[in-house]
Amino acid sequence: MDAAVPAQPAYDFDADTAVEPAGDGVWRGQISPRWSIGPYPNGGYVLAVGLAAVRATLPHPHPFAVSAHFLRPTSHGPVDIAVEPVRSGRGHSTAEGRMVQAGRERARFLATYGDLAAVSGPTAVTASPPPLPPPEDCLTDDAGTQPMPNGLIAEIRRRMDIRFAPGTVDFLRGVRHGRGGIGGWVAFADGRPVDVDALPFLCDAMPPAVFDLVDQPGWVPTLEYTVHVRGVPAPGWVRAWFTTRALVDGYLEEDGEIWDSQGRLVAMSRQLARLNPPGS
Amino acid sequence: MDAAVPAQPAYDFDADTAVEPAGDGVWRGQISPRWSIGPYPNGGYVLAVGLAAVRATLPHPHPFAVSAHFLRPTSHGPVDIAVEPVRSGRGHSTAEGRMVQAGRERARFLATYGDLAAVSGPTAVTASPPPLPPPEDCLTDDAGTQPMPNGLIAEIRRRMDIRFAPGTVDFLRGVRHGRGGIGGWVAFADGRPVDVDALPFLCDAMPPAVFDLVDQPGWVPTLEYTVHVRGVPAPGWVRAWFTTRALVDGYLEEDGEIWDSQGRLVAMSRQLARLNPPGS
Repeated sequence: MDAAVPAQPAYDFDADTAVEPAGDGVWRGQISPRWSIGPYPNGGYVLAVGLAAVRATLPHPHPFAVSAHFLRPTSHGPVDIAVEPVRSGRGHSTAEGRMVQAGRERARFLATYGDLAAVSGPTAVTASPPPLPPPEDCLTDDAGTQPMPNGLIAEIRRRMDIRFAPGTVDFLRGVRHGRGGIGGWVAFADGRPVDVDALPFLCDAMPPAVFDLVDQPGWVPTLEYTVHVRGVPAPGWVRAWFTTRALVDGYLEEDGEIWDSQGRLVAMSRQLARLNPPGS
Repeated sequence: MDAAVPAQPAYDFDADTAVEPAGDGVWRGQISPRWSIGPYPNGGYVLAVGLAAVRATLPHPHPFAVSAHFLRPTSHGPVDIAVEPVRSGRGHSTAEGRMVQAGRERARFLATYGDLAAVSGPTAVTASPPPLPPPEDCLTDDAGTQPMPNGLIAEIRRRMDIRFAPGTVDFLRGVRHGRGGIGGWVAFADGRPVDVDALPFLCDAMPPAVFDLVDQPGWVPTLEYTVHVRGVPAPGWVRAWFTTRALVDGYLEEDGEIWDSQGRLVAMSRQLARLNPPGS
């Protein structure tokens, strides 16, 4: 038994978001094809690779607020993340990340970290977790073996165990309700616990809610994506709910909430995305 | 009549957000005390000064998505904004801004601009404008002459003509409903039209919705602030509504919507803020 041998990450998400220092504040990671929709790596996964570099740089452990602007599509393969520490204070620290692949910047993001165990102040919550039947009464989809409405195979769905709320994935059989909501119970397929580091990914891990609004939606690239982590998830399933309320001239917001098994809100997200025509 | 004499900006907002080139991608502006709450310049106004520098740099006219991380409080007086063009494409361009005052960075922000007149695609909106009585049946507050619940005089309120929805500013007389919502009709006091450039400011221009949730809220500094501009406002009053649904351990989100006089959604915002104890 040799404790000095570094352990391989036990879970897919940790293996596929690992970064190594490459000097001068630059970190090297790999965009794995295991979290893609067709040829397109999931934006939340790409951000999670970037945040692994930020987490290794900043003194605080938790991403209180992360804002990413996606500049160009990312491809499978190596990426470099240049991290600039911007400010380090007692309660919060902020860094900027630049993700570069093949010599071109793909995403730039700002991240303000803090320590959820160290904060205190008043609590007043009027929001409530999405009403869901128990996981066993929710729906599994075909977990990445059937194409999405845009004709793409979502490899990412094989990494996730999602039990969809009844009625929210009827677009898989061509039925749209025009509500623009999707939600359900979420876990990693390989049993990895949902922790704080997984939340910025999970807020982008479901099929787009806009699939319930439009036929032949095509690709839905994210322009801007912001996540606020509000709590440390308790063990067990998390509940996630995503809503698009305004698709205007092909642009849409998607708002997300993640609630833990104890009924506490642990993350909120919003993104601005654009519908690209099929085949574009 | 000499057309070569540059006009002074006719309106307060334009005068107080004007920037001048200072060389090497740096712009010089002034943080005016006219948009402050006590000693604290309003975050949306500070961002508007920064965006004036971005707008002067990027080829596209409209801020589709702006994300600001506020690092340290800004004070009244000169600021420098260093603008880095990050990417310029056909449909969108992105820049980064760094706002520096007295040698210390106060805010860093990412801005993706586009052209609202040039976009096209499907439209499907399930959201609806906040139900409001006509402006003449809404409430004016004391427009900056009476202290807010945190004891501060809001000079910014003298720049704005806000007609609050009944019941949403009862905190001014010490009554809280625990709903965490505030809204009303909004215009500039000096008659400046509400245009696209004003929207990132207006999404932070009302008293915090959290004033309806907690007594003695103190100062409410913004950590992160994101605005999506979704349309060009039609002339006339805009309707604004802001909601805080989760105050957790002193941290809160505030979600905002602005609708124009024709009932079209023109901006969405979200911020993460923190309640600082009174006197802190």
